[in-house]
Amino acid sequence: MSVSEETGDYLIAPDPLRPGLTRRLEGTDHTGAPVTASVVEERPLTIFLNSREIVTAMTIGDYPEYLALGFLRNQGMLGDMADVTAVDHDEETGTVVVRTASRTSYEEKLEKKTRTSGCAVGTVFGDMMEGIEGLRLPRAELRTSWLYALAHKINRTPSLYLEAGAIHGTVLCRRDRPLVYMEDVGRHNAVDKIAGWMLAQGERAEDKILYTTGRLTSEMVIKTAQMGIPVLASRSGFTAWGVEIARQVGLTLIGRMRGRRFLCLSGEERLVRDADPGAVPEEDSRHRRKGAQG
Amino acid sequence: MSVSEETGDYLIAPDPLRPGLTRRLEGTDHTGAPVTASVVEERPLTIFLNSREIVTAMTIGDYPEYLALGFLRNQGMLGDMADVTAVDHDEETGTVVVRTASRTSYEEKLEKKTRTSGCAVGTVFGDMMEGIEGLRLPRAELRTSWLYALAHKINRTPSLYLEAGAIHGTVLCRRDRPLVYMEDVGRHNAVDKIAGWMLAQGERAEDKILYTTGRLTSEMVIKTAQMGIPVLASRSGFTAWGVEIARQVGLTLIGRMRGRRFLCLSGEERLVRDADPGAVPEEDSRHRRKGAQG
Repeated sequence: MSVSEETGDYLIAPDPLRPGLTRRLEGTDHTGAPVTASVVEERPLTIFLNSREIVTAMTIGDYPEYLALGFLRNQGMLGDMADVTAVDHDEETGTVVVRTASRTSYEEKLEKKTRTSGCAVGTVFGDMMEGIEGLRLPRAELRTSWLYALAHKINRTPSLYLEAGAIHGTVLCRRDRPLVYMEDVGRHNAVDKIAGWMLAQGERAEDKILYTTGRLTSEMVIKTAQMGIPVLASRSGFTAWGVEIARQVGLTLIGRMRGRRFLCLSGEERLVRDADPGAVPEEDSRHRRKGAQG
Repeated sequence: MSVSEETGDYLIAPDPLRPGLTRRLEGTDHTGAPVTASVVEERPLTIFLNSREIVTAMTIGDYPEYLALGFLRNQGMLGDMADVTAVDHDEETGTVVVRTASRTSYEEKLEKKTRTSGCAVGTVFGDMMEGIEGLRLPRAELRTSWLYALAHKINRTPSLYLEAGAIHGTVLCRRDRPLVYMEDVGRHNAVDKIAGWMLAQGERAEDKILYTTGRLTSEMVIKTAQMGIPVLASRSGFTAWGVEIARQVGLTLIGRMRGRRFLCLSGEERLVRDADPGAVPEEDSRHRRKGAQG
């Protein structure tokens, strides 16, 4: 089966050859020979909610509107799409302005945020936990055959990661089908772009699975829960607090997914073990994602 | 040569078995069998400068004093150690208070920051570029034999990464010797802890090499430049803007270091190619760092 047949059913797939996402840079290799390397772009995008400047995100620059919508939504600053009257992106100034008909509760939120955040290090802690208090994610089924099929398809999808590395991917999936595959230099941006797409499309969350190349930290778990998605899966590992929050909100958390192996540390009750792990091949090193640390 | 002989000359090495850094969590594996997994901790630490709350960082929790000092220093909120009258850590409340004799210029800085940041996404952009305007890093020599020796030693050092994954490492080195190896769930925390250690020790920067498991983004390059370290090396890849800033400040940037291979995209003039790459073995898969994505 060719790559396009295997991976051609995305609604949004990475477009690694799109101009502006990577740059060719000159350097030398370990032998001293001159080389030209393909390197991902990283540029500031400042997000406004009406007249208020909210954040400057470092991003590869694709889907700025989805990034802005998803960021504001995941920060609890935006309700649903009915509130949004316009989303204006200005490439030259690197800004996106999300406009709403009426003022939202964001100013209060912003006050909280500036007290606890400061970036370059951490997480908007107080703010983020707030959105998930009392939250319980819906019932859902997660077949292990879907997990294996998703990992197989996603690892074979042409991506910026395979082209230039130094990037994180997040994929919105339904059953065994990857639907929307976003990449970004910041893994939170990739998730926020998916949240923005879901918001703009009015897409339901309860039948979805979120797959990420990044670690299962508290922040990733909280974002997934806020989006209402009951399953989060990753090639990478867990943090203890990520697991704790997942258990609290009833999120199924799958980590360390490599070839036939994975660990489930929360929400085991959703798992339907319909695949024979022995029949799943070990990971082909050619498709091993090995350089997106960061 | 045994592991301890190879790696025993650290001033600070990871202490993967130290209580409180990891937790044993119950779950199931891909076969449905119950497993107990070792998972890194992640807890909020709120940093105060005098009476002012600056940031809440998500951290594994070791070296909170170094993290606070390094964070404040790298944010340009703190001069040198002579300004600091006390650093008080309260484990119960998860706070560190850094006290200075006189008020610093941090309030102005903080104003700037709250305008551009918001975390959970990006970077304190305006603020961070400020500290490196006009900066030129000092002359230094970087032998390729040191690079190979450092990678060899660091990959064999017992670490939280090897114990539990989902963590980033940053190592301060001099010539072929790794000196201080910090790990954290946030790669910026690992760097900040090193900056805090350097500040507290009055350690000079111009003869150092910084090694990171993470990607060479603009933020990593800026932090390294602010610390005055002329060389930054990584197993991971580059971003175009990271390379651009490195060239601007004259930082030697080595990336995609795997076995005998690496790329140099900035500061080639410091490289002394005294090692024969052909004599360097390919990476042993047992020591391949393969799960710290995030």
